Amino acid sequence: MSRAYNFSAGPAAMPESVLRRAQSELLEWGTARASVMEISHRGKDFIALAQKSERDLRTLLNIPQNYKVLFLQGGATQHFAQIPMNFARREQSADYVITGHWGEKAAKEAKPLTQVRIAANGADGNFTAIPARASWQLDAKAAYVHYTPNETIHGVEFQDIPDVVGVPLVADMSSDILSRPVDVSKFGIIYAGAQKNIGASGLVVMIVREDLLERCPKDIPKIFNYAEHAANESMLNTPNTFGWYLASLVFEWLIAEGGLAAIGARNRAKADLLYGYIDNSGFYKNPVEKSARSWMNVPFVLPREDLDAIFLKGAEAAGLMALKGHRAVGGMRASLYNAMPLEGVRALVDFMRDFARTNG
Amino acid sequence: MSRAYNFSAGPAAMPESVLRRAQSELLEWGTARASVMEISHRGKDFIALAQKSERDLRTLLNIPQNYKVLFLQGGATQHFAQIPMNFARREQSADYVITGHWGEKAAKEAKPLTQVRIAANGADGNFTAIPARASWQLDAKAAYVHYTPNETIHGVEFQDIPDVVGVPLVADMSSDILSRPVDVSKFGIIYAGAQKNIGASGLVVMIVREDLLERCPKDIPKIFNYAEHAANESMLNTPNTFGWYLASLVFEWLIAEGGLAAIGARNRAKADLLYGYIDNSGFYKNPVEKSARSWMNVPFVLPREDLDAIFLKGAEAAGLMALKGHRAVGGMRASLYNAMPLEGVRALVDFMRDFARTNG
Repeated sequence: MSRAYNFSAGPAAMPESVLRRAQSELLEWGTARASVMEISHRGKDFIALAQKSERDLRTLLNIPQNYKVLFLQGGATQHFAQIPMNFARREQSADYVITGHWGEKAAKEAKPLTQVRIAANGADGNFTAIPARASWQLDAKAAYVHYTPNETIHGVEFQDIPDVVGVPLVADMSSDILSRPVDVSKFGIIYAGAQKNIGASGLVVMIVREDLLERCPKDIPKIFNYAEHAANESMLNTPNTFGWYLASLVFEWLIAEGGLAAIGARNRAKADLLYGYIDNSGFYKNPVEKSARSWMNVPFVLPREDLDAIFLKGAEAAGLMALKGHRAVGGMRASLYNAMPLEGVRALVDFMRDFARTNG
Repeated sequence: MSRAYNFSAGPAAMPESVLRRAQSELLEWGTARASVMEISHRGKDFIALAQKSERDLRTLLNIPQNYKVLFLQGGATQHFAQIPMNFARREQSADYVITGHWGEKAAKEAKPLTQVRIAANGADGNFTAIPARASWQLDAKAAYVHYTPNETIHGVEFQDIPDVVGVPLVADMSSDILSRPVDVSKFGIIYAGAQKNIGASGLVVMIVREDLLERCPKDIPKIFNYAEHAANESMLNTPNTFGWYLASLVFEWLIAEGGLAAIGARNRAKADLLYGYIDNSGFYKNPVEKSARSWMNVPFVLPREDLDAIFLKGAEAAGLMALKGHRAVGGMRASLYNAMPLEGVRALVDFMRDFARTNG
């Protein structure tokens, strides 16, 4: 056997060179005479790693000085709840813009903690488009506006940062962080589960504007308080040290690859190749409006559902893994995160072409 | 360089054979053609791993059928808060027995969520003994009684399970779970951060009696609700899959080593060797009352503080790592978790004997 092209939506493929490096030093990391997962997070070796990883992330995303970077746990889902707990109050409302499954879930988890207002919702159009900005019903007094720049299940992605004048913009960037350059200064909070473009599951990266941390209430347990995490350099308690280490390797890899401009160009090329083929195939279909198509997750359907199983079996035999679509949408889904090389997308398109010829 | 004997209090040493296995399959796990950290937690391969790991843990601890096993995130500290959120109510009190730093911290994090009653506190004796059971001021109507069977900083460990008739007993077993056989049926809840005896940091294992899950309130976010995690087989959201995988390897290793009876005998022998030497050395001192001495964490002091740095430097040169004590106690601390072989303790005692001879 050998490694396949892995189109998993997440936990997703990681750069092979990162895995090889982690493998080579799994028993002995640096001069520690132990694995990186066997040493104290408060020792100088791990603290150096933590600081370097933050510097690298700041370089990659050009994070302004007035933003804190946190390395947390719990998955994005925990922060669906923890964000309103910290930044809104029960008597205050928060605006949610829903463009797919994850935005819906974020709103649901926030409900016990704040008054959730749905400012816009793409559900009517089956999440195949992004509601026009002019149609959003924003509240100028909202605690924040939450949205999901990329929806993994529906394959819908914002191509620009929405303007929400005067209200902090909160983005669940789990599935498109680090996929192209982004202007961090336009956001109040960016957060992301690591298992798509940052590393392995079990780690969450949060970038938060310092002034917002003043909102964190003092009457909640410290472990839920982001200001406490910030004041303690994300070491309020033992962090996921191995996950943090993997993230640090991915950040180094991204810098070596040329940074986010280069990564973004490659991601655009990958997406263009696959959407271009799908649209011209006369066989496969992607239902998403062109202006809202995701570079990261490309759902597509075959002409007949009974072909799905045959397609998946053939794809697997051709070394193309994890293409089954989410049950909510059906068909197939190819996730093209940073670690997926252009060659992988070429191999997928070649297979799709052959399959369409045989089964068309 | 080579791997040293690692006495870190946590994140702590892991069994070398576990690390070697993880290393060998880091790029390709089983027939997945990908790393275990690159595949969906909802795919059949990972679900089989999850189920096997739970079965193995049930075998090791002989967990009764009416207990659920959860694999969570956030470290024990998050559960200091989440346990009262789920099992007590603001108007209800919960009893805390404090025998060291971690018990204190658990009580502090619980305060915003329930009325914390300190039923017993070893602080007066500088946490060198466990307050006699007869002196505990328990409330028969308490939501639960929380305690810390082993305190890593003070090296204080309960040798028996305290009887708290009628009230569910909640144990933070982060630093002594799986170190010897234990009667799970005596507990309402056992929980443990993984980074000492289970695997790497970023994973928490919880064993909870089913009837207690009925207390979990419906008006909190799902992600904080243990009953939801139980109903979803710990896959309410993406778990820390690599951490879970490492835990599964550690469980397999423990079974191969003969299970907890064998492990307990070995841990007792390790502790006896080190305490025996310390007590007879006329040089080193351990301040803990003999009946409360921890098998897992052995703090000891040298006759003069100025010897500490020389001791640590010499120990490191002899391949004995991470012996510096916690600043709250000073001196040294040797953590003897499951992964520490008897040979490591012998090497430590040999070094200590030489050092005492030279500096005595």
